[in-house]
Amino acid sequence: MVSKIGFIGAGNMGGAVARRLAGGGHDVHVYDLSPAAVQSCEQAGAVAAGSASAAVHDADVVFTSLPMPEHVLATWTRLAPELAEGAIAVDVSTIDPGTVELATAAVGEHGHPFVTCALGKTPAAAERGEIPLFVGGPGDAVSALRPLFERIGEATHRFESAGAAAMFKLISNLVGMTNVAVLAEGYVLARAAGITPEQFGAALADTGAASFQSQVRLPWLMAGDYEARFGVELAAKDVRLALDAGARQGIPSPVAAQGLAQLLSAVAHGYGGQDAVAVAKVLDPDGKLLGTTDD
Amino acid sequence: MVSKIGFIGAGNMGGAVARRLAGGGHDVHVYDLSPAAVQSCEQAGAVAAGSASAAVHDADVVFTSLPMPEHVLATWTRLAPELAEGAIAVDVSTIDPGTVELATAAVGEHGHPFVTCALGKTPAAAERGEIPLFVGGPGDAVSALRPLFERIGEATHRFESAGAAAMFKLISNLVGMTNVAVLAEGYVLARAAGITPEQFGAALADTGAASFQSQVRLPWLMAGDYEARFGVELAAKDVRLALDAGARQGIPSPVAAQGLAQLLSAVAHGYGGQDAVAVAKVLDPDGKLLGTTDD
Repeated sequence: MVSKIGFIGAGNMGGAVARRLAGGGHDVHVYDLSPAAVQSCEQAGAVAAGSASAAVHDADVVFTSLPMPEHVLATWTRLAPELAEGAIAVDVSTIDPGTVELATAAVGEHGHPFVTCALGKTPAAAERGEIPLFVGGPGDAVSALRPLFERIGEATHRFESAGAAAMFKLISNLVGMTNVAVLAEGYVLARAAGITPEQFGAALADTGAASFQSQVRLPWLMAGDYEARFGVELAAKDVRLALDAGARQGIPSPVAAQGLAQLLSAVAHGYGGQDAVAVAKVLDPDGKLLGTTDD
Repeated sequence: MVSKIGFIGAGNMGGAVARRLAGGGHDVHVYDLSPAAVQSCEQAGAVAAGSASAAVHDADVVFTSLPMPEHVLATWTRLAPELAEGAIAVDVSTIDPGTVELATAAVGEHGHPFVTCALGKTPAAAERGEIPLFVGGPGDAVSALRPLFERIGEATHRFESAGAAAMFKLISNLVGMTNVAVLAEGYVLARAAGITPEQFGAALADTGAASFQSQVRLPWLMAGDYEARFGVELAAKDVRLALDAGARQGIPSPVAAQGLAQLLSAVAHGYGGQDAVAVAKVLDPDGKLLGTTDD
């Protein structure tokens, strides 16, 4: 049914999704500014497109996976007139509902539906198709995409609209990343009280402070491993977008706002490219409690 | 070995522990200002003591389980001279390390060891002995108490000192209750975006925002059930004590500090006696998003 897929943006998550689709026998035409990113998709069976326009040409479904909402909106605004008749626009980036609205209007002007398919979990899980999808958009388009969604992810959570799906994804990162920020505070307090990393980790798992983040990121903090699985800068972006979307509706989110302040502080200190758990470093500038020198 | 146990304070958690000990065949003498609290322990086989002094008289081990650090310190200061020779002082309240230090000195002056045995989870779990214990104090005393700990809880997490154990418990509540505060923010943002409670709950479990609190308290928030399992006022107390202990060591915890501000705001709005999840109400004063009128 879907004979050609265009794919714009083959970064960590986008590349994994493009490879997953190509590996499932789909004819995927990938465009990315980075030749290396495109090559890794070619190795999985995708076709390299010379330009975004070439990727989109005659495609039944076009995906975008781009870093910032501005990129997503600019891309759809430029490509909307070039979409093939009946083509469905799908964004898998993490963007705000305001941008979803504008992108929906941009492609809608040319008769195309816009679908949000926000991606959960990690690039490694995405390579295996083991991620949750947060999906919203016109019902016909979402139904037509179902076989692709089943190849990309293992659970599809359906929302009333593309904007609601995008907002949900932002909210989940707002909550998750603020959980990281306060977990980092708890860890630093514990170290200052002479509690060892091992004591803290073992005992915390047995309390109401346990979380996905304490299971996954606390061991990295304990080991001084700040390699970015989800970087501080990206985390700050998502929390900022969620807060902004909430503020436009008059909703205060003061705890998450302070979480954002800490993430931005970590970026200002030069940790933007490290994992979100590096937010702990701003609480311990000389590294005595975290057992790491400033790097 | 332990022939008489004195127990001061038979509230929700303390009462459960006293009943657990009495039900295990120990000779437990309970004192509480509330006759009803004492009666519920008598039904489990405990003896009612006419006064704190009577509970303590000739006891080998004396427990305190009291609401505030001030109560714990005042009680030990007053009772220290009355403790039987060799008696061990054990506090199961949630108190700060500064108070632990003062109480240790107060009983130490009369030759008695002071042990912290902070309790995890809920009163219901405590009745079944299915709680984690966070224990610290002099090694000999902790060893002597081991049979009692095995009756009270199912896992004993050992810390270097009574103060470290107390601080750990405060930190776990600081993290857990701040997780609740930001979860509440995420929930209100989701409702404002038109996401249903059920969509939010199901999808969130599949993200990095999942936590003990989202598993346990989010269903209550979705159902508008604010019955206190752990009340806003108690939560605020613990986060305040943790922050104060950290601040004394020069440790900033800005996200948790904003969490405390939200809990205190909920208290100021009259929700102090409701469950901690009622912190959501201050974000939605007219109850439109939470689907509840102000009560």
